[in-house]
Amino acid sequence: MRQAAHVLEVATPGAGLVEITRAVATWVADQGMATGLLTLFCRHTSASLLIQENADPDVARDIEDYFAALAPESAAYRHQDEGPDDMPAHLRAALTQVQLSIPVIAGRLALGTWQGVHLFEHRARPHRRQIAMHLVGE
Amino acid sequence: MRQAAHVLEVATPGAGLVEITRAVATWVADQGMATGLLTLFCRHTSASLLIQENADPDVARDIEDYFAALAPESAAYRHQDEGPDDMPAHLRAALTQVQLSIPVIAGRLALGTWQGVHLFEHRARPHRRQIAMHLVGE
Amino acid sequence: MRQAAHVLEVATPGAGLVEITRAVATWVADQGMATGLLTLFCRHTSASLLIQENADPDVARDIEDYFAALAPESAAYRHQDEGPDDMPAHLRAALTQVQLSIPVIAGRLALGTWQGVHLFEHRARPHRRQIAMHLVGE
Repeated sequence: MRQAAHVLEVATPGAGLVEITRAVATWVADQGMATGLLTLFCRHTSASLLIQENADPDVARDIEDYFAALAPESAAYRHQDEGPDDMPAHLRAALTQVQLSIPVIAGRLALGTWQGVHLFEHRARPHRRQIAMHLVGE
Repeated sequence: MRQAAHVLEVATPGAGLVEITRAVATWVADQGMATGLLTLFCRHTSASLLIQENADPDVARDIEDYFAALAPESAAYRHQDEGPDDMPAHLRAALTQVQLSIPVIAGRLALGTWQGVHLFEHRARPHRRQIAMHLVGE
Repeated sequence: MRQAAHVLEVATPGAGLVEITRAVATWVADQGMATGLLTLFCRHTSASLLIQENADPDVARDIEDYFAALAPESAAYRHQDEGPDDMPAHLRAALTQVQLSIPVIAGRLALGTWQGVHLFEHRARPHRRQIAMHLVGE
């Protein structure tokens, strides 16, 4: 057995879902493992990772609207120093997750037919985000 | 060190929690590892995985009611093609998670006394679901 | 490749976030691995794990208030036997997660600059909590 690690950089255009399935799958394929475990770790507290349907773009829009309403901008937060979109960004990250692990079976990520891996940017402005990737297997 | 992988199929009777602890623990025991890491990955976008109390069935009922209210059926969603229960199913999956990793210590899953592993079906009708399982250890 | 496992005990003073980054990082450093994967697993159904900003303590207070409001104490829950704070504790655990995996790269946890690992106690009274830790790498 062996392992590999890499940091993926993703540019986001502002709040919303950015699909990263292809970049992730390409790196995994390059490691040439038949069986293994991929772990993705988002190195930020105001962005997160989400696996969701990538067939109908309306799903992503509905998800974005839902989390914007569930953790809204509000004057009631104590933490306001980094702007009104910062504290809701932390909350939306807490409600989703910063880490995902996906088995590799028969040389491929075991994603379901409709599953796409997304970086969920929660800040209003564009950012450069880092996702640490780790693969163990053979 | 070595690894094993398997796809577990679970039939769900419609929306709600289905405990899968026994099926998962049996497969892990069959691999005969003293120490390791088990990863479960739900290959769907409208079902998820949840570890929760399995002693009092009222806990599961309260959880089901809570998520039904937190991500309700609504005419306001853009994505309606697959029925009124589909978009809330995606949201409930996003609020929980599609992946769980559990250490194996002293030959057993390191679950706490009251922890049971559940598949959380979010669609109204029965489905057959696939959970990819990966185990690494020795 | 090799692996290590350990159960970390954490005393909580009641509901709220308890940072455990130092205890976790110290154990990982003691294993002397350059590359690997750390998994933390909370062995409880009324406490969870959360990576969040540890620079401004207001962020933790806002997160605690937010989850207290999102899953409030209520007479409407069926499950009341263990006190009014028990069912909301299960819900807050379900909304966050009981497991986190973090890659180890260049001998260090791949946490971002502002990321701290926290145990999120959801019960009102102090508890002793167990976090199973597993590390695989070399």
